[in-house]
Amino acid sequence: MSLPTQRHQDTIDTAIRALHGRTFFAAFPENPSPEIYGADADRLGREAFARQRNQPFTELLQAGPEQWVGQEESPYEQQPLGVRYPFFSPETLLTRAQASFEPWRKLKPAQRAALLTEALDGIKDRFFEIAYATMHTTGQGFMMAFQASGPHAADRALEAIAAGYEEQTRFPEETRWEKPMGKYNLALMKTWRAVPKGVSLVIGCSTFPTWNSVPGLFASLVTGNPVLVKPHPKAVLPIAIVVAEVQKVLAAYDLDPNICQLAVDADDRLIAKELAESPVVKLIDYTGGSEFGTYLENLKGKTVFTEKTGVNSVILDSCDDLDKVAQNLAFSVSLYSGQMCTAPQNFFIPAAGVRVGQEQVPYEEVVQKLAAAVTSLATNPKAGPHVLGAIQSPATYARVQQLTLDGGRSILPYGPVPHPVYENARTCSPSIHEVEAARIEQYCQELFGPIMLVIKTQDTQESIRLAAQLAREYGAISCGAYTTDEQVKEQIMDEMSLAGTPVSFNLTGGIYVNQNAGFSDFHVTGGNPAGNASFTNPEFVIKRFTWVGFREPLEA
Amino acid sequence: MSLPTQRHQDTIDTAIRALHGRTFFAAFPENPSPEIYGADADRLGREAFARQRNQPFTELLQAGPEQWVGQEESPYEQQPLGVRYPFFSPETLLTRAQASFEPWRKLKPAQRAALLTEALDGIKDRFFEIAYATMHTTGQGFMMAFQASGPHAADRALEAIAAGYEEQTRFPEETRWEKPMGKYNLALMKTWRAVPKGVSLVIGCSTFPTWNSVPGLFASLVTGNPVLVKPHPKAVLPIAIVVAEVQKVLAAYDLDPNICQLAVDADDRLIAKELAESPVVKLIDYTGGSEFGTYLENLKGKTVFTEKTGVNSVILDSCDDLDKVAQNLAFSVSLYSGQMCTAPQNFFIPAAGVRVGQEQVPYEEVVQKLAAAVTSLATNPKAGPHVLGAIQSPATYARVQQLTLDGGRSILPYGPVPHPVYENARTCSPSIHEVEAARIEQYCQELFGPIMLVIKTQDTQESIRLAAQLAREYGAISCGAYTTDEQVKEQIMDEMSLAGTPVSFNLTGGIYVNQNAGFSDFHVTGGNPAGNASFTNPEFVIKRFTWVGFREPLEA
Repeated sequence: MSLPTQRHQDTIDTAIRALHGRTFFAAFPENPSPEIYGADADRLGREAFARQRNQPFTELLQAGPEQWVGQEESPYEQQPLGVRYPFFSPETLLTRAQASFEPWRKLKPAQRAALLTEALDGIKDRFFEIAYATMHTTGQGFMMAFQASGPHAADRALEAIAAGYEEQTRFPEETRWEKPMGKYNLALMKTWRAVPKGVSLVIGCSTFPTWNSVPGLFASLVTGNPVLVKPHPKAVLPIAIVVAEVQKVLAAYDLDPNICQLAVDADDRLIAKELAESPVVKLIDYTGGSEFGTYLENLKGKTVFTEKTGVNSVILDSCDDLDKVAQNLAFSVSLYSGQMCTAPQNFFIPAAGVRVGQEQVPYEEVVQKLAAAVTSLATNPKAGPHVLGAIQSPATYARVQQLTLDGGRSILPYGPVPHPVYENARTCSPSIHEVEAARIEQYCQELFGPIMLVIKTQDTQESIRLAAQLAREYGAISCGAYTTDEQVKEQIMDEMSLAGTPVSFNLTGGIYVNQNAGFSDFHVTGGNPAGNASFTNPEFVIKRFTWVGFREPLEA
Repeated sequence: MSLPTQRHQDTIDTAIRALHGRTFFAAFPENPSPEIYGADADRLGREAFARQRNQPFTELLQAGPEQWVGQEESPYEQQPLGVRYPFFSPETLLTRAQASFEPWRKLKPAQRAALLTEALDGIKDRFFEIAYATMHTTGQGFMMAFQASGPHAADRALEAIAAGYEEQTRFPEETRWEKPMGKYNLALMKTWRAVPKGVSLVIGCSTFPTWNSVPGLFASLVTGNPVLVKPHPKAVLPIAIVVAEVQKVLAAYDLDPNICQLAVDADDRLIAKELAESPVVKLIDYTGGSEFGTYLENLKGKTVFTEKTGVNSVILDSCDDLDKVAQNLAFSVSLYSGQMCTAPQNFFIPAAGVRVGQEQVPYEEVVQKLAAAVTSLATNPKAGPHVLGAIQSPATYARVQQLTLDGGRSILPYGPVPHPVYENARTCSPSIHEVEAARIEQYCQELFGPIMLVIKTQDTQESIRLAAQLAREYGAISCGAYTTDEQVKEQIMDEMSLAGTPVSFNLTGGIYVNQNAGFSDFHVTGGNPAGNASFTNPEFVIKRFTWVGFREPLEA
């Protein structure tokens, strides 16, 4: 089949314009409605997911597996999914990736961009299946699982394709260079190539198996690098479907499917380190804990993109309507039980309380309002279970259960959240602890999960100082701030900008600090220890290739 | 004085267009003719340089020096210049740089770009003075000293200003984001800031004191970072003049001159490491040897741009006119006595010789032709001394004198090159040694200076393999190749592109492999161990700042 260069160019051009306009744009509708996705889409997706259970995943075009492996279990059922994936040794994976490099790098950027955009169409047809796979690996509620793993991830992938295509075509492929030398011209024909760096490794996490992995995956592919996708062993299926769809398109155009391989761990053999340390691997994308991320960042001779952990702050100074603020924050803390890299953790509240309109609301009243809002959401049977979802790992659940903070005070204990469908679901409501501002060691680490810390500060100046210090020294991916004072607002922007942390001001209603939008919000700035990657700024794509020039004299 | 934002916008816009057209463009004429620069320009520059000798350099707006220091000597005279510079302790330099950060980062990119472009005008007025200062610190011939340290450096600086300005204005400062939610829109006002990383350190080299330092200097400044310029102690004056001109413009607009400080070593206190390791320093630009460069690259928490050493290859396969090839290569080896990071060192010639038109010229004849061309240039009293210039350091001179290669053969010994003006000039003609292809340890290191190695290979395939391997493993900044075979040419392009090395094909006449042009040739690709910087690709500027976004709900 001839390459689909023209067919997707409009989509790519539109995406590039969106990247630079940074206003609302979505190529993939986030609403899982029958009108958009078809009357049967939900049912078909659910059935496809059900059929896959307790079966080998045979869609991949990777021949000769050494064994079949799988460790996933549903946080809703606390039962194994039973899906088994083909395991290949690192040697096999690397040899095949290397062999696939030459044909892939020799395509034009426009050809790679078109193929990858075509793969997104295939992925779109499986959004519901991916949603159920995500729900039953990560514990996300259905709506988040659909949106985050489906359309939002596909938009982030398209963003990476568009940015990669734009950067590779931003300088001419060739030009005639003529230097006037007085009586004659010196003339050179010059050409340039955007040369991919080599084999790329994408290491996924257990909570956002597609959303966090597809930007690196598609950014590396569009810039000509073969990719090995190493998912978290507890969240394979959603990204396995993505890889299968990419391979399907590659094969349809007679390209080597090993350009994009799934590289799963065996139950008894974790392969991430072995792959990462191979001299063949030049690029690494990683989402996960800081320790392994920092180890990767320190590997020599690699270009590494990380999203590690951060401690996100909320600064409460003043607002118009404290109830709306509390509801908004309660939702942010509860959404997917705080298992989001953008979830707020540390709430800085001045000892003198928060100014609301003309009134000063005392500290304790603010704290109790937050607690009441959290309880109200968690105990609302129509909302709580769906917003909170389930807790992905037993370790996160244990952290919530066992958390005690020396000298701190428990403001709200975690409680049960019965799920209307899955009685075995691993769930709990968020707990709230008060810690002393001076005990920074108690709140400078990410406490992943539904845990909220309240920190009483001397005043908003101390709140800002601590939030900025935490972001600078320990990393942060989001910050929420509530203030009606323009000077305070500017100060927060200035100090958090130096700490490389985006700030959402005065959010109430239907938008939350933990959400961010493809084509508009840069996700992770790269400006603090929370990670060096940013979806998708130019740096995220240009570090994946090298500009190399060639020149030769022309007859003038 | 109000900031000159509009006055220079045309220059900057033109430079941005040139960056993307990549055809010939020069904002600063390279011809030191009286018609262009004024009838008295040369004499005035020479006099200004002469007046500065044996005097303190008092132009800098840096108050309260701790002592006055200077170690420069002229390679033409082998006598001290006697210029003394104000020395400040690292603590003083860093404290002042930090204090200057806030006002500088709060300017708009357009304001900074305009100020810096205005500084280039001041530098232009001193091109001749800078040329003599360069000649008598580096040993460059006058013409190279004028062009490289004057107009070519200023063009590279403008390139960095333009690229930095473009990248900082490539995304909107603000936008209204409206997401349709069915019956209503969710509306956010979003703003973004390009946040500079912090204090920047630029470490210069002894051979190209302005050309190699101004790209990093101006790239850091235009992106809002205060800069400390730490020159090589043997080549201070040219860049001191540049710093003084930048400070002059800053002061004229009531800005802190410490935004750009000269940071010289004292005779008994080298400060580069202390500055580099300070947590205050976030950005480092470095030109020089590999050992120190690699140490810098490995510092934690810094963004480091390096141009270290490389081993540059010439691949001889086939050509139309071997005499013209030999003349071109002899010039490349001789230019500034091989003290250029782009100078060719390793000449790969097949054992069966080189195909010239329809004829096969034997290996030994090719080698002798190269040697004859080198001798002819070096012994031509009208050309030799001016092309070769003088040898910057006694260490380089000693290397040429003492070089013996076990098992190798001397093809041409170095010889004297009397200088018509400076009888004490430290000069010699290039030496040529033949080494065995199998003895890669003999030619895998840079032998800085007028040294040419000839390597007899089995065939062109081996030549390509070795040249690519050297570039990949040891670094290379340039490659010359001569072939009339299109397939061989494509193979060289492909293999050298994977080694991140630009290739000049079939150069004869007035253009040489070691030259590269601002706004057109990327200098150093960043794709091999010779360095991770590239003048000036987008990466060179965007890693100096962080995109941070802010958002707040709007009434829809």
